[in-house]
Amino acid sequence: MAAKRIVNFSAGPAALPVSVLEEARENLLSLGETGIGIMEHSHRGKAFLEVYGQTEALCRELAGIPQNYRVLFLQGGASTQFFMIPMNFLSSGDVADYLVTGSWSEKAVSEADRFGDVHIACSSKDRNYCYIPPSCEFGDRPAYVHYTSNNTIYGTEFAEIPAVPDDSPLICDASSDIFSKPLDVSKYGILYAGAQKNLGPSGVTLVIIRDELVERGADDIPTMLKYRTHAEKDSMYNTPPTFGIYVMGLVLTWIKDQGGLEAIAQQNQDKAGRLYAYLDESRLFRPTVEPGSRSQMNVTFVTGDAELDAQFIAQAQQAGLSGLKGHRSVGGMRASLYNAFPSEGVDALIACLQEFEASHGS
Amino acid sequence: MAAKRIVNFSAGPAALPVSVLEEARENLLSLGETGIGIMEHSHRGKAFLEVYGQTEALCRELAGIPQNYRVLFLQGGASTQFFMIPMNFLSSGDVADYLVTGSWSEKAVSEADRFGDVHIACSSKDRNYCYIPPSCEFGDRPAYVHYTSNNTIYGTEFAEIPAVPDDSPLICDASSDIFSKPLDVSKYGILYAGAQKNLGPSGVTLVIIRDELVERGADDIPTMLKYRTHAEKDSMYNTPPTFGIYVMGLVLTWIKDQGGLEAIAQQNQDKAGRLYAYLDESRLFRPTVEPGSRSQMNVTFVTGDAELDAQFIAQAQQAGLSGLKGHRSVGGMRASLYNAFPSEGVDALIACLQEFEASHGS
Repeated sequence: MAAKRIVNFSAGPAALPVSVLEEARENLLSLGETGIGIMEHSHRGKAFLEVYGQTEALCRELAGIPQNYRVLFLQGGASTQFFMIPMNFLSSGDVADYLVTGSWSEKAVSEADRFGDVHIACSSKDRNYCYIPPSCEFGDRPAYVHYTSNNTIYGTEFAEIPAVPDDSPLICDASSDIFSKPLDVSKYGILYAGAQKNLGPSGVTLVIIRDELVERGADDIPTMLKYRTHAEKDSMYNTPPTFGIYVMGLVLTWIKDQGGLEAIAQQNQDKAGRLYAYLDESRLFRPTVEPGSRSQMNVTFVTGDAELDAQFIAQAQQAGLSGLKGHRSVGGMRASLYNAFPSEGVDALIACLQEFEASHGS
Repeated sequence: MAAKRIVNFSAGPAALPVSVLEEARENLLSLGETGIGIMEHSHRGKAFLEVYGQTEALCRELAGIPQNYRVLFLQGGASTQFFMIPMNFLSSGDVADYLVTGSWSEKAVSEADRFGDVHIACSSKDRNYCYIPPSCEFGDRPAYVHYTSNNTIYGTEFAEIPAVPDDSPLICDASSDIFSKPLDVSKYGILYAGAQKNLGPSGVTLVIIRDELVERGADDIPTMLKYRTHAEKDSMYNTPPTFGIYVMGLVLTWIKDQGGLEAIAQQNQDKAGRLYAYLDESRLFRPTVEPGSRSQMNVTFVTGDAELDAQFIAQAQQAGLSGLKGHRSVGGMRASLYNAFPSEGVDALIACLQEFEASHGS
């Protein structure tokens, strides 16, 4: 007898589709008819290799990943990619361009700084990262260009893939909006994401990397830190996070059942759109991000009065709406509406906001 | 309706206690009464912090971990520790001593080689790693001494903690025998293990490290590769593998319910002891490892005829005994009997061996 599920606005790890959780539950003691639970299968056995193959195939199908890209399932989250990327592609004397749109971009910059020079192509730090800079100034032939497509903390998201200098690979940390809308993978050298927002549990990092970069990566670095190692061994140089890869496969199947990335994007626009529409009309609450820069994944908003924000968060919690507290660097509220977040959850939030506004509005 | 469970001799990921799987199953859609599944909880929320705290406390209690040690839950498996250790503790010009007792030790050596000098204190490569060297010759004040306490592939295990030079921290890869018997943590500088054999699913690495080494680690290296980073943030500098840590907590609770590490050691000696006793008596099968070096976790054996080995493995598979094929570097059979492997599974294997011997013995 499971307890009644509540509405989970967590920024990650985050809500997963109920059907995914039910399917995982059925396979914990025996994956299908194998008589061995999904966590207990050898990563080199037939049963898990099928799971792995299906997960990769679904990635490729849903995102239209070209043949000259590898799909890797690594560990260590985006934070590990922050240093693996410059360790592989930024030699001393080289310059890489970074678009700085939040704390995670800042962290990526500080890891790269250790290996070579970083040129900041744009930054929205001047206004606490509440917008996506409209343009960039790139250096001369950067080794690569790195950006964060969605900024979980600040509630901003790039509406378009930034245009970069020819011949400079574009590298994207898409941890919080990957697979939330159609992707043009061919525009990227590397696209990576921690799984725990749109793709599954924490502990798996999806890395989609162009063959040419797999080849070009540095040689004299630890084996585990070469993309080549993982590409050559189909992510099985060492034991991969098998359960996480399995759950990611279930999530991808669920996305496919929803109609794929076009349909998911429509759902996400609808969910976030309704919330922003309410907030733009509200006389008590307001979004912290201006139109054009707003995230479809993380909707940040405030009353302007920290006390009132806290009251609202407590009242929402009472009503079964969990995880609405904003990150301390922005304050106020944050509603994370990833793929698996249900549309009814947005209705419930708007109703709660309306009720609070009616009793506290001026 | 789960399928009937079969006997799983997998070397890792490996069998987990049924009660652990059942408990995890109950909490996938809602952790207790929280209304949010275990995989969906924020790592910074109260519910997961409780899980984390319990898991750490159980580690400390079961293994008697002294107060001047930190318990970390990292990612990347033992293979990541192979380079993190020298990156932190082996500068150019320094020498570290390695005990080489199998493929994993060899890999650890080749990663260390990149950072400083390696002195091989002993090796059993001369006889395909079928024994634990009886003694070591250490260099002069090594930066540290590294060994692999149990060799999954070869079926060998150190019966005693090797004596090392004073002032040289002892570092142990205990991936395949951690928590299988009482531990004297105070003898180690670092003790680490991938979880997927005795502790839980793949994707979590348990690292037990003395405070003094946390402090001493290198400074000018990527943030994620400093033990200090993870110690300062209680393994939450970035999103940890929350589900894996949860399952590890369940496994540790199960170990405690068995009576702790003394009781578990008794069970393991009994399981492996009965199998070795049979093999030593058999006229068809023989263990590949000599007494004194034999692993309680991975029992390796052969008939001496590869064809016959293959026949036995096929017959065992038919009888519902899975995962008995030995690693290609040893051939023959390997029965992995980690903590959670049930005693009845050993009975079933011995019965199957006897039956095969009766029909194929000379």
